[in-house]
Amino acid sequence: MQLLIRNANLVTHETTLKNHWLMCSDGSIEDFGPMESCPEVGNALDAENMYVLPGAIEMHIHGAAGVDAMDADMEYLEKIATHLPRTGSTAFLATTMTAPFADIERALINLADHKYDSGAKLLGVHLEGPFISSRHPGAQNPEHIIIPDEEALRHLQDLSGNRIRLLTYAPEEDDGAFLEALRALDIIPSAGHTDATYDTLKNAQDNGLSHITHLYNGMRGLHHREPGVVGFSYLEQPYVEVIADGVHSRPEMVKLAFDTITPERLIMITDAMRAQGLPDGEYDLGGQTVHVSGNEARLSDGTLAGSVLTMQQAVSNMRDYTGCSWTDIVRMSAYNPAVELGLTDAKGVIRQGADADLVIYDEASNLKHTIINGERVF
Amino acid sequence: MQLLIRNANLVTHETTLKNHWLMCSDGSIEDFGPMESCPEVGNALDAENMYVLPGAIEMHIHGAAGVDAMDADMEYLEKIATHLPRTGSTAFLATTMTAPFADIERALINLADHKYDSGAKLLGVHLEGPFISSRHPGAQNPEHIIIPDEEALRHLQDLSGNRIRLLTYAPEEDDGAFLEALRALDIIPSAGHTDATYDTLKNAQDNGLSHITHLYNGMRGLHHREPGVVGFSYLEQPYVEVIADGVHSRPEMVKLAFDTITPERLIMITDAMRAQGLPDGEYDLGGQTVHVSGNEARLSDGTLAGSVLTMQQAVSNMRDYTGCSWTDIVRMSAYNPAVELGLTDAKGVIRQGADADLVIYDEASNLKHTIINGERVF
Repeated sequence: MQLLIRNANLVTHETTLKNHWLMCSDGSIEDFGPMESCPEVGNALDAENMYVLPGAIEMHIHGAAGVDAMDADMEYLEKIATHLPRTGSTAFLATTMTAPFADIERALINLADHKYDSGAKLLGVHLEGPFISSRHPGAQNPEHIIIPDEEALRHLQDLSGNRIRLLTYAPEEDDGAFLEALRALDIIPSAGHTDATYDTLKNAQDNGLSHITHLYNGMRGLHHREPGVVGFSYLEQPYVEVIADGVHSRPEMVKLAFDTITPERLIMITDAMRAQGLPDGEYDLGGQTVHVSGNEARLSDGTLAGSVLTMQQAVSNMRDYTGCSWTDIVRMSAYNPAVELGLTDAKGVIRQGADADLVIYDEASNLKHTIINGERVF
Repeated sequence: MQLLIRNANLVTHETTLKNHWLMCSDGSIEDFGPMESCPEVGNALDAENMYVLPGAIEMHIHGAAGVDAMDADMEYLEKIATHLPRTGSTAFLATTMTAPFADIERALINLADHKYDSGAKLLGVHLEGPFISSRHPGAQNPEHIIIPDEEALRHLQDLSGNRIRLLTYAPEEDDGAFLEALRALDIIPSAGHTDATYDTLKNAQDNGLSHITHLYNGMRGLHHREPGVVGFSYLEQPYVEVIADGVHSRPEMVKLAFDTITPERLIMITDAMRAQGLPDGEYDLGGQTVHVSGNEARLSDGTLAGSVLTMQQAVSNMRDYTGCSWTDIVRMSAYNPAVELGLTDAKGVIRQGADADLVIYDEASNLKHTIINGERVF
């Protein structure tokens, strides 16, 4: 099964190759080169000088198209995997919420069992909570927050079939044993929903903390005598998630994150909940009612509760807010997640033998095509 | 009257010229060149491969050596002008405080009259308040804060003999007329002791606001949905004062300012009060008692009340905190102030015909010599 893409600007994490072709074969990128040497095949897609990028890898997404990872049913994966390619994403981490422990267990058992393998690819689980700070719950239900606990962690990783790859927790609640357990279980430790000080974070960084969950939201802010989580993110440049919807933070503050943290370390996420792709209305998020209106999703008290942002819109916004290059977009949406997940042989890159999971954007940031396993799915 | 400096690293705002000589003649820099072409004269200073910089210009200093601009007496200028060269500064703006209006009038009349012309040079006045926000008074006495008033401003500029060159005010208290008056009077408008929002500051910037008073202190902080004065400073890069004493803000936050605002726009100040250079104890600042202990000066309630930082210490700290170059130090301590004050023909530069106001540091940031008008004064 072959698909030839012609007249493309191939965007890698390092450069843009103008006026190139790319051949997909049996699900992989077989080869690519300048149009002068373009092969002839029957099944060709003319990219009309648009931009061909490795598909986005979403590291933080709760739900979309009406489903949520916490639903713990078989419909979840089919619906979200079918939906995400339409938004520019070709892989993702199913993201759980702070909820009754048994609900988290059920969600993980459900994800461990999943067999659905069309559409966007499930790369594992992002466990957001319950090991977070009650000082910065955001829309995580504070009733179900628990202290970081290595035994509980090992139990959950076991239930998930070792699919937990990223975990959001509050480092200030950990004496160090939890962080050590995360590393032993090959889970990326991320500080989020946390009141940690700069010094606490520096110490955790020395012991393997390498990721920050949704910069600005659910964390101790910046002060000139206590840099906090925001200052740590700017100064120490771990991998840092950002929600570029213009609601969770002002566009200028996304620009500031781009300037200080740089595209080498920034990761675009959507943090979307089940209403992504659906009309305004009321939806459930981790047992709480969320009111969705326009591009905002809030609890009744006004607290932001996930987003309805799509990756395509995030790409468009990021280009508007920062004037960044397409290569920067590849870094922030695909390459950096692939590096963190240890998948750059296959994902987040354009190279021979890598998965043929690609998205095609026009200059105005409109998503035109999505290709998964070398086949057009959108 | 000639003085030859030999074996020097001449540091300009653009580069470091290694192993050079520099000839001072009649108070000016006559010429300079590589040691291979060094002239022979009697009065020579061997710089021993140390760093020769244009002397620092202090844009924000209330007092030192026991005196304060608000004292409104003839002793002020003699004492501070004699003292500052020992700390690495060769010129300064006398800085006033928020105080009873009649006290400010007296201070300005006194400064207008000043004839003392040895030592560090008085380049004008920085009027800090009284047109500031009562939400961020810092150690400015809130009782004497007044709303920005163009008539009062013109009156004060008149009294000073047009020597007010920089003025700290709260832009959110101004409908635009005050800023217009500042520009008409050739006074640099600086936002400080202010609760201004990012949008207010952007609007003021469009109308001539170009300077921020002591970043981090006495201002609305950074928030991800309201960048405030700190966010404005990072994002828009006006000229920005910073007190690099490790007390007014953490060293890491000075580093963050250096990284985001860059040496092109950052200005090192001391914000020193009369206790600079004197032992620990109790001192007066604008009618309030200040307790000085070590490198901290505070009101009884703990509020920071100016500093006892010297420019030499600020240079040493800045190099430690940021690893910056000597050229960066020239930018931040001398060149940027000279640009703002329109004095780069004579000050903040090493060039033929410029004032021979120079400081010599060793690699470990120890101040070794100060030269004013081509004569060694320290």
